[in-house]
Amino acid sequence: MNRVEEKPASPTEESPGRRTRPVLLGIVGDSAAGKTTLTKGIVNIFGAERVTAVCTDDYHRYDREARKELDITPLNPKCNYIEIMEQHLKLLSLGEPILKPVYGHSHGTLDAPELVEPREVVVVEGLLGYHTKNMRDCFDVKVYLDPPEALRRHWKMQRDTSKRNYEREQVLADLDKREPDSEAFIRPQRQHTDIVVRFHSSGPSQDVDPASLHVRLVLRPVLNHPYLVDLAEKTNVDGLQPIRLELSRDAGKPVDILEVEGALSPEAATMVESVIWEGMGLDDHDLDRDAIGLFQDGNDTLRSESLALTQLLLVSQIAKAHTTT
Amino acid sequence: MNRVEEKPASPTEESPGRRTRPVLLGIVGDSAAGKTTLTKGIVNIFGAERVTAVCTDDYHRYDREARKELDITPLNPKCNYIEIMEQHLKLLSLGEPILKPVYGHSHGTLDAPELVEPREVVVVEGLLGYHTKNMRDCFDVKVYLDPPEALRRHWKMQRDTSKRNYEREQVLADLDKREPDSEAFIRPQRQHTDIVVRFHSSGPSQDVDPASLHVRLVLRPVLNHPYLVDLAEKTNVDGLQPIRLELSRDAGKPVDILEVEGALSPEAATMVESVIWEGMGLDDHDLDRDAIGLFQDGNDTLRSESLALTQLLLVSQIAKAHTTT
Repeated sequence: MNRVEEKPASPTEESPGRRTRPVLLGIVGDSAAGKTTLTKGIVNIFGAERVTAVCTDDYHRYDREARKELDITPLNPKCNYIEIMEQHLKLLSLGEPILKPVYGHSHGTLDAPELVEPREVVVVEGLLGYHTKNMRDCFDVKVYLDPPEALRRHWKMQRDTSKRNYEREQVLADLDKREPDSEAFIRPQRQHTDIVVRFHSSGPSQDVDPASLHVRLVLRPVLNHPYLVDLAEKTNVDGLQPIRLELSRDAGKPVDILEVEGALSPEAATMVESVIWEGMGLDDHDLDRDAIGLFQDGNDTLRSESLALTQLLLVSQIAKAHTTT
Repeated sequence: MNRVEEKPASPTEESPGRRTRPVLLGIVGDSAAGKTTLTKGIVNIFGAERVTAVCTDDYHRYDREARKELDITPLNPKCNYIEIMEQHLKLLSLGEPILKPVYGHSHGTLDAPELVEPREVVVVEGLLGYHTKNMRDCFDVKVYLDPPEALRRHWKMQRDTSKRNYEREQVLADLDKREPDSEAFIRPQRQHTDIVVRFHSSGPSQDVDPASLHVRLVLRPVLNHPYLVDLAEKTNVDGLQPIRLELSRDAGKPVDILEVEGALSPEAATMVESVIWEGMGLDDHDLDRDAIGLFQDGNDTLRSESLALTQLLLVSQIAKAHTTT
C-alpha cells in the first residue's frame, strides 16, 4: 500500500483531478457486539491519517425523545435515513466527500452535519450497514460481529452501566425491547457478509477471562485467504492445534472456518502475525504489535491474541482490496 | 405538464423504479435582490405540492459566531460547502433525495439536516448558486436578479430593519462590509445565466411607487422565447409601447431585451398573460392572476404587473423544460 501515490487534493475548477477510490470495510453487528473494539486496532495499524471512520448510527431520523414518542428503536430501518445511507456509502466508495449527519450519543440529539472526506481506507461501523443491496454493494470487505447472545448481553450490561450511566434494570428492559428488531433487521445481515467474527468462551459462563476468548471466523469463499492452511499447520505443535482451518458449511453453503484458541501463546501469535504481515507487502515498517489486540475491561486495557489476529486478518484483506481496485 | 404521470414512490428493494427527472430553476442574486418575492409567484402557480424550494444559504460552513471570529461574509465561497452544494444540485437534478443542511436564520446557527425529496419543479434560490460550472450545469433555467444597486440597498434596509430587527447603522455597515465579496463572487455569476431580471424605476429616486417598477429582462439566446415579438406588437396601442422587445448586446453578446412598463394597464397585462398561459398548454385550469405579481411593502401586500409578467415568463420556461426533459 506504500506504493500508492498520495491522494490528490480536492479537485477544484482549476485542477480537475480523478479521486483515488478508497477501500470500504464494513463492521456491522448488534449493539455492544464489539464493533468499536475491532475497529480500533485496524485504525491503529494504518494510522488515523489514512483511515476515515464513519458510524451509521449518525443516520438516525429521530432523536431520543421522538423515538420514545413513536415507540421505535434505532434498530428499525424506519428510524434511519436508509436511502441517504445508501447514497453516502456510494459517494464514499467513489472517493467523494459527504456532509454526514451527526447523532449526539450523549444527549440523543440530531446535531449539525459535518464534512467527511474519505481517506485511503473507510471503516463503516454500525447496526444497519448491510440492510439493502445498494449498501452492501459499496463495500470491499463486509464483516459481521456475531458473539453468542449471552456474551453480547454481558458486554452491553458492562458498557451501558459503566460508560452510559444506565441502571441494570434499564439495560435489561432495553435488551428485551430491542430483541424483535434485532431478529428482524440486524441478524439477517449476517448472511450477506464475507467474514463472520464470533468471539466466544469455552463454557457456558461469561465470567471467564476476557483476554482468553477464542475466536471463530466464518470465511466465505468470496475473499481469498492465502497462507491460512500453512499457518494452521505451522502452529500445530505436539498435537496441540491453537489455530485450526476447516472446511464446513454455513447456512448450507461451503465456507472455511478458522478457529483460534484464546490461549494461543504470545510466541505462536507473534509468528503467525509476522507471516500475515509479510504477506501483505507493507515493507515500509514493521508490525507494531502494541497497535492490535487491545480492549477495555472496565478501566483496564487488556490484550487478547485472538482479537489481535482477527484485526490483522482484516487488515490483510483491506490491503489486498487496495491493490486490486 | 398535466400529462406527466405521477412521480413514482421512492424506489425500494421490492420495486426499483426510475425517478422522474425534475426541472431545476435557479434564482440567484445578491442579498435582498428580490429572490424570495420572485420565487413566491412561481410556487403559487404550480402549487406547493409540485414544487420543492431549496435555499443555498443552508450550505453555510460556519455559524454566525464563527463567521464573526473568522471575519468572513456568507458571500464568500470559503464560507460555504461548495463541493456539497454541487453534489446536492446534481442529485436533485437526477431526482434523488438529499439530506440538506439547515441554517437557522433567526439565530445564525447550523441545525440538524432535513430530508428533501425533489418534486416536479425544484427552485434553487441563493447567493452562490452559479459559482462553479458543476453547479450551473445542473439547472434547466438560470435566472439572475440584478436590480440597480441603489434599489437593492433600499430593499435591504427595508427588510433588515423591519423583519430582522437590525438598526439602520448595522445594515449600512453590513452592506459596505459585503461589497468586496459581492463584486468578487456574486455579480460575476450574472454572465452565466439565461435570464437577467432588473426591476427599476424611471428616475434616480427609489421612493417611487413600488407597484409600478418597470422590468428589463435580458434574454440570452440559449432559451426559446416564442410569441414575445407578437406580444410587443399586440400591446402597441396608439403608439404607446408598454412592452418592447429589442435586439441588443449584453457584455458584447447578442441578446433580446424585453422591457415592460410598470404602468402596464391591468387589461393589457391580462391579455398578455393569457397569451403566455395558453401557449404553455396547461389546459387543466385557468391562470389564477391572484397567484402572481404580489409583493410585500411593509405590512401591505401590493400588486405589480411587471412582476406578474416576469413570473409568468419564468413559469413558461419551466413548463417548456419539463416537456423536453
